[in-house]
Amino acid sequence: MTDLVLPPDTNHYGTIFGGRVMAYVDKIAGIAAMRHARKPVVTVSSDSLDFLAPIKVGEAIYLEAFVTYTHTTSMEIYVKIQSEDLMTGEVRMTASSYLTFVAVDEHGNKTEVPPVIPETEEERMHFDTAPERRRLRIERKLERERRLSRTQR
Amino acid sequence: MTDLVLPPDTNHYGTIFGGRVMAYVDKIAGIAAMRHARKPVVTVSSDSLDFLAPIKVGEAIYLEAFVTYTHTTSMEIYVKIQSEDLMTGEVRMTASSYLTFVAVDEHGNKTEVPPVIPETEEERMHFDTAPERRRLRIERKLERERRLSRTQR
Amino acid sequence: MTDLVLPPDTNHYGTIFGGRVMAYVDKIAGIAAMRHARKPVVTVSSDSLDFLAPIKVGEAIYLEAFVTYTHTTSMEIYVKIQSEDLMTGEVRMTASSYLTFVAVDEHGNKTEVPPVIPETEEERMHFDTAPERRRLRIERKLERERRLSRTQR
Amino acid sequence: MTDLVLPPDTNHYGTIFGGRVMAYVDKIAGIAAMRHARKPVVTVSSDSLDFLAPIKVGEAIYLEAFVTYTHTTSMEIYVKIQSEDLMTGEVRMTASSYLTFVAVDEHGNKTEVPPVIPETEEERMHFDTAPERRRLRIERKLERERRLSRTQR
Amino acid sequence: MTDLVLPPDTNHYGTIFGGRVMAYVDKIAGIAAMRHARKPVVTVSSDSLDFLAPIKVGEAIYLEAFVTYTHTTSMEIYVKIQSEDLMTGEVRMTASSYLTFVAVDEHGNKTEVPPVIPETEEERMHFDTAPERRRLRIERKLERERRLSRTQR
Amino acid sequence: MTDLVLPPDTNHYGTIFGGRVMAYVDKIAGIAAMRHARKPVVTVSSDSLDFLAPIKVGEAIYLEAFVTYTHTTSMEIYVKIQSEDLMTGEVRMTASSYLTFVAVDEHGNKTEVPPVIPETEEERMHFDTAPERRRLRIERKLERERRLSRTQR
Repeated sequence: MTDLVLPPDTNHYGTIFGGRVMAYVDKIAGIAAMRHARKPVVTVSSDSLDFLAPIKVGEAIYLEAFVTYTHTTSMEIYVKIQSEDLMTGEVRMTASSYLTFVAVDEHGNKTEVPPVIPETEEERMHFDTAPERRRLRIERKLERERRLSRTQR
Repeated sequence: MTDLVLPPDTNHYGTIFGGRVMAYVDKIAGIAAMRHARKPVVTVSSDSLDFLAPIKVGEAIYLEAFVTYTHTTSMEIYVKIQSEDLMTGEVRMTASSYLTFVAVDEHGNKTEVPPVIPETEEERMHFDTAPERRRLRIERKLERERRLSRTQR
Repeated sequence: MTDLVLPPDTNHYGTIFGGRVMAYVDKIAGIAAMRHARKPVVTVSSDSLDFLAPIKVGEAIYLEAFVTYTHTTSMEIYVKIQSEDLMTGEVRMTASSYLTFVAVDEHGNKTEVPPVIPETEEERMHFDTAPERRRLRIERKLERERRLSRTQR
Repeated sequence: MTDLVLPPDTNHYGTIFGGRVMAYVDKIAGIAAMRHARKPVVTVSSDSLDFLAPIKVGEAIYLEAFVTYTHTTSMEIYVKIQSEDLMTGEVRMTASSYLTFVAVDEHGNKTEVPPVIPETEEERMHFDTAPERRRLRIERKLERERRLSRTQR
Repeated sequence: MTDLVLPPDTNHYGTIFGGRVMAYVDKIAGIAAMRHARKPVVTVSSDSLDFLAPIKVGEAIYLEAFVTYTHTTSMEIYVKIQSEDLMTGEVRMTASSYLTFVAVDEHGNKTEVPPVIPETEEERMHFDTAPERRRLRIERKLERERRLSRTQR
Repeated sequence: MTDLVLPPDTNHYGTIFGGRVMAYVDKIAGIAAMRHARKPVVTVSSDSLDFLAPIKVGEAIYLEAFVTYTHTTSMEIYVKIQSEDLMTGEVRMTASSYLTFVAVDEHGNKTEVPPVIPETEEERMHFDTAPERRRLRIERKLERERRLSRTQR
């Protein structure tokens, strides 16, 4: 699955806002999650996102997303973002990230999702490394909650 | 510094898109970075973001951002997001994250930024733990680049 | 309370539209009104608005709003708009205005709001001069209605 | 001249934001001013605006604007806003206001505008009462500046 | 009926997107259809649209739409788009098109619309040539369906 | 190439505006044209567009576009629009259309584009039938210009 868009809003130096890319990432990941779960979904977390190269006005953005792993009610989605300079045809890697979504029912309660069966080598690589990422996410959340409770005014 | 907005676009279940929150986070962090550097800035990375509670249509979002640490040309920004149910006055923690920006000159080249001097206890806590987060970010980027070069088609 | 935004749409001379500022003013005033009344609100009127200085692309807008006075179901809100050139740090007064909102219940009918207790000297100044502004607004509305009935085709 | 639009964004009670109407008013007035001056224009002030009736989702907005009076570099524009319930055909007066614009040259400096010649009875009424409104606006601006200098922190 | 707007989004060569014009065309036609039917409407088809001249940033768009013909539940709408260079006053024909809408009831089912009575010479010309356009549209739709069933993967 | 989006704005009956779909169609076609020509492009015309099925809020839109034929400076693009109900997985054909773009140089003058070489059976079908569509378009444009010159006020 590939998403393709022309950046409608950029800063006044002609570069797309990082936050605009994040919004695209969340949208495509949400669609991938809904297509897997066939249920409404809610963003639970976004892993870190490194911008390897800026996207300029007039370039196209290609987003690719697939469900890499599931755990009862949650899904991990991998998103890869590339940009293409339409005048030269040069395609560059922009960023990649993992997001986590949960499926919800009509009352907003978490609900189970079907498991994922990795097929390609790339899918298998993401699948095999997912439990370790999940462990780090839980650790990170606990660590952050501890810090927040200490620093909140 | 506090940002306050009424969510203009939400999904059709009345909850704000995670990507919309990310866009606000990037904007407020960018403003904080520009106010510190007095130069144009570009988003380099966003740390992980955990959504502790969904934001509903009609609620207000409060964003708070400040520069926690600098390193030659880069700045680490801490962003805290809270939401308020305007009908009840209940304020809830939505998420928090660290973003990294670099300052650029008119040619888009990286340029130096002034150092940060932490003053409050909260600022000192973010300042003292920043080098460790920086180390993890560099490690993470290297690790991701290694994985990408392995999985890229 | 301070609102802070990066202008997303400006005219093609790089200046923010007056109407865009008016939209921000109405939004922040509406939030202040809802926080006071803890009820949905509807804009009833906007006093005159003088633009002392134009806001340029890339500047930040700071909006500050508070309820100055109430009268049974209506609230008067004072809004102050400033802009900051993020490259130089120069902050300029852009405009200020008074808006009037009424609180409504779920059927859209006017409903009572709690009174306001001015605390700072600034709040007291706005509070003390409010009944005179209210008198002028009623007069102005009657005058306008008279004129309209004369000129309507 | 009549402008006609379908409200794209309203609050979650189905009523158009007051600020959205203000943005339309500024846009149509700006077009009328540019058509008169044949030069770029900048909003200088907006007179008070009373919302006589709320506009609902799915209704049409009709805006009518014309230059009523000029003074060297400034133009006064009268804007009348009506709404139509497209299902019943009922047209209601929403609001009306006067705005002031100045024409600017390519360096942003004020520049002269041609005088207005009122033709219809309605135009003459607005023209004849304009000097008095202009006097009140200058008075109001001076009064506000005096108050601001007293209350500014 | 005349619609008038300032283009908010254009490509980075300063020309309005063709798709933006199409969106305006659909909106104004929908309003004309709703005013005729006094019922919700749905776009069924758009005839071909030729762009005779590009619209530049800062120009105004004038759209004019009226119902030319009806057939039980459907309405044919003629839309004429002109643009004006506000600095010179030059008005140019941009494009024109016919769209077809059906009126629907609250369950989304097609519902009858009142007939149109052409009055001016222009209206009569559009009315008299409408049955032939309707015939071509039905033919075209059948032809397209035949081709699609042949080419669909 | 497949574009995928979540409809951000729909009418208040939960159906996407026809004009919104037209805007997507123009965007994806423009990207396909730029990828082929490696030059800026301008929309010249849109063939008729029949909406076979409405798209509802919460569904995904899939757009597919490719260059079918070129003629010196112009390109014909075929766009196919499908929608998917993400809750059920049902995919439906929404519409399809042909658009024509010309490539322009930095002065806005028409400039040559490379020829297209059809490869798949579907591409060959579109390629072979293109000259006939081109002939009809020229005829249609002449016919419309004749009618316009007769009806213009």
